Amino acid sequence: MTATAIVIGVGASTGVGGALCRRFAREGLHVVVGGRTPEKIEKLADELRTAGGEATAVAIDATKADDVARLFDAAEAAGSVPELVVYNAGNNQFRPLLDMTDEFFEEVWRIGCFGGFLAGREAAKRMVPAGGGSLLFTGATASVRARPPFTAFASAKAALRAVAHGMAREFGPQGLHVGHVVIDGVIDGDYVNERIPQIKERLGAEGMLQVDDIAGVFWSLHVQPRSTWTLELDVRPFKETF
Amino acid sequence: MTATAIVIGVGASTGVGGALCRRFAREGLHVVVGGRTPEKIEKLADELRTAGGEATAVAIDATKADDVARLFDAAEAAGSVPELVVYNAGNNQFRPLLDMTDEFFEEVWRIGCFGGFLAGREAAKRMVPAGGGSLLFTGATASVRARPPFTAFASAKAALRAVAHGMAREFGPQGLHVGHVVIDGVIDGDYVNERIPQIKERLGAEGMLQVDDIAGVFWSLHVQPRSTWTLELDVRPFKETF
Amino acid sequence: MTATAIVIGVGASTGVGGALCRRFAREGLHVVVGGRTPEKIEKLADELRTAGGEATAVAIDATKADDVARLFDAAEAAGSVPELVVYNAGNNQFRPLLDMTDEFFEEVWRIGCFGGFLAGREAAKRMVPAGGGSLLFTGATASVRARPPFTAFASAKAALRAVAHGMAREFGPQGLHVGHVVIDGVIDGDYVNERIPQIKERLGAEGMLQVDDIAGVFWSLHVQPRSTWTLELDVRPFKETF
Amino acid sequence: MTATAIVIGVGASTGVGGALCRRFAREGLHVVVGGRTPEKIEKLADELRTAGGEATAVAIDATKADDVARLFDAAEAAGSVPELVVYNAGNNQFRPLLDMTDEFFEEVWRIGCFGGFLAGREAAKRMVPAGGGSLLFTGATASVRARPPFTAFASAKAALRAVAHGMAREFGPQGLHVGHVVIDGVIDGDYVNERIPQIKERLGAEGMLQVDDIAGVFWSLHVQPRSTWTLELDVRPFKETF
Repeated sequence: MTATAIVIGVGASTGVGGALCRRFAREGLHVVVGGRTPEKIEKLADELRTAGGEATAVAIDATKADDVARLFDAAEAAGSVPELVVYNAGNNQFRPLLDMTDEFFEEVWRIGCFGGFLAGREAAKRMVPAGGGSLLFTGATASVRARPPFTAFASAKAALRAVAHGMAREFGPQGLHVGHVVIDGVIDGDYVNERIPQIKERLGAEGMLQVDDIAGVFWSLHVQPRSTWTLELDVRPFKETF
Repeated sequence: MTATAIVIGVGASTGVGGALCRRFAREGLHVVVGGRTPEKIEKLADELRTAGGEATAVAIDATKADDVARLFDAAEAAGSVPELVVYNAGNNQFRPLLDMTDEFFEEVWRIGCFGGFLAGREAAKRMVPAGGGSLLFTGATASVRARPPFTAFASAKAALRAVAHGMAREFGPQGLHVGHVVIDGVIDGDYVNERIPQIKERLGAEGMLQVDDIAGVFWSLHVQPRSTWTLELDVRPFKETF
Repeated sequence: MTATAIVIGVGASTGVGGALCRRFAREGLHVVVGGRTPEKIEKLADELRTAGGEATAVAIDATKADDVARLFDAAEAAGSVPELVVYNAGNNQFRPLLDMTDEFFEEVWRIGCFGGFLAGREAAKRMVPAGGGSLLFTGATASVRARPPFTAFASAKAALRAVAHGMAREFGPQGLHVGHVVIDGVIDGDYVNERIPQIKERLGAEGMLQVDDIAGVFWSLHVQPRSTWTLELDVRPFKETF
Repeated sequence: MTATAIVIGVGASTGVGGALCRRFAREGLHVVVGGRTPEKIEKLADELRTAGGEATAVAIDATKADDVARLFDAAEAAGSVPELVVYNAGNNQFRPLLDMTDEFFEEVWRIGCFGGFLAGREAAKRMVPAGGGSLLFTGATASVRARPPFTAFASAKAALRAVAHGMAREFGPQGLHVGHVVIDGVIDGDYVNERIPQIKERLGAEGMLQVDDIAGVFWSLHVQPRSTWTLELDVRPFKETF
């Protein structure tokens, strides 16, 4: 039986989602790559297979329960109920509060929190009866501190964090390891490097979060023995001011 | 010019919303009573007027921007942009996570957080140009601690708390005092007393939160001078275990 | 029987300690003024009496149990076990960690935390059998956030905060209201105004914490009814960035 | 040049300190074993050497700066400035607050926090010029939550946590990785098993924190790349209620 993992929220290969997929594939898991854009996730799945791994790309809207269920179906079709699920979706959009429309505020919550609830519920439903596993959420500084112009994002991330904490208390004793990784700092990926290249010049590579290192942190949570499970940790570059 | 206040989330006269209205009316403010059920808010407005106060009842769905705007219109029609707005809506509904439907989770967020965003945005839009005032949110233990079977509620309340914190940082320097009151404990009102009367026998009246005392806490925030504004405080009965 | 209050950590009349004493005397309490420097506390006690209040100055080292006991003896001699005690001692000293000697780190803790423990223990010992009352601690931003060069101060203040929280849980149900006031911002007093007068020019009076307003916050905690006790709140000027 | 580590607060071989030493020795570090009782640390050092590792036992009082300096001298004598230092001292002593003598409260702080400051200062002084390394502190539930009868312990642990957070901000950018591990739950060691054997029967081995697993968590912090350093994480058994 092939062990499987699901990563929700995969975009460019250079992002956190891509790095998570690469790491999990390298560790021998069949990776179900969940993302919005078919071309991006297909390309990543190809890359994983070329590198000797196993992968299935499934285009989804992470805010639809049916789509989320299809990810789990794909994992089971590939071999088994997943042993590891990461909810990594959510964009850090920002603007002054008076410029936030109803739709903007709701959309930030929908992808930032509601999709995480859907993923968490599906994971609990399938993984607990199968013996447990890991359910990990990507957090941010905004998860624990709301600052303008990030109020909508902070609201969504705080809401997601509460889902993680509540689920940890409800399902931990049933074998589901729920973790929440608070990423604090600038991620060294296309998103920032293409928009504001001078940041990298100023901080240096080690002054930015490396996506492969972030993936390593998620993996270290997954392999924690049951006697010492971590619910929450922060990660930031050594140079980061906080 | 008559000074006005708005209370959003008013149900039974014996609840927190009702107590807030009574207190604000007694302090001389024209109170705009915002709630879902016309009979309840009309009855309360009558009660306030009978006691010598001024009040306008406006039936609204607190999760609709237009309805929220109507509350502010009513305040202005009664005399002025409000100097005090409280968002007190939100029900503490709970169930095991696997029993939470999409609709349930979303609805808890919509009334618990989204309506608070709408009220906050309207308050900032109108009150800041008018010179400021107070914008207060009702929080709960779940705002800072997510426990099953309250995960959806905790998620919504954490999201609302982030709105309060983000708005405090954005609008405080412009004269809008944003406050968040974390209510911890059992409220001595119809809701509990009718369902579980034995709680009162066990705790005694002082062991439960008295709604008039809660209203006093909100009022004390409103009258704080600008040099010492409180963003967040907790309140609980002296006997409460926490 | 005269009702009494004790304020520990009183220096210049323009500081928080002085303002607390003035407020409590104005509210009709006999104030026991506890401070290190006899001239300063005698002068303040005279001022209070001239204004029609009652006061007793007691020179103490707040880090000695016997001295702390003498304050409570003075209160009882003046009329009764105190109904209100504030621990306001502690200096915000700072330096780079490598420049902190053993003595420096210990001294900051001794006045910042140990004295608070002594005051709290004496208060619990005497006030609980007498029916309760209020025990309030002055906190700071550093109580909840440790930043260089304030590491020693933050360590002491975090330690004091834990004393407050632990005592609230232990003695609240016995009628002792323990409160912790997190003061965030620059206090408009001699300490800052003499050293860095340009701060006031920049912030304006309302941009700094006014000591009389701070005293008002402490008083509002003292008069809270038992059904709604606050353990912790923050206060800051409306302009403060945080 | 031999790489070295220092562990402060080593007692019985079955405790966390012993497990940290075993793990670090197995990873190839020369371990300086710092503890109060010569027999215990000598025995552990022998055990490490028998298993093929390198170790030096140094009997110290962790609350004396000179003793702490001797640990670092021993590391340098064995090969180098340490690359990894853990402050693991501190006993969870408890009693009702009114039974806490001055000496008790101070002693709990002295070993729980002051010794940690001394170790941290010595580490920063020596390790930063040598290029950095890891400085890790053992925390507890009480570090973030003060509950009777643990008020003194919680005060000391909160104070230690502030030292960790302040040092992380001051020395992180200089290459010193400061970490704080919040251990939440019952540790499966002689301390508990001899006093209350029925706990193990109730929780099972996986329901208690295994010391080797805890050591693994500390090691995983030490090997984090600079782009993703963790300041704080919690660990607890999957069955733990929190």
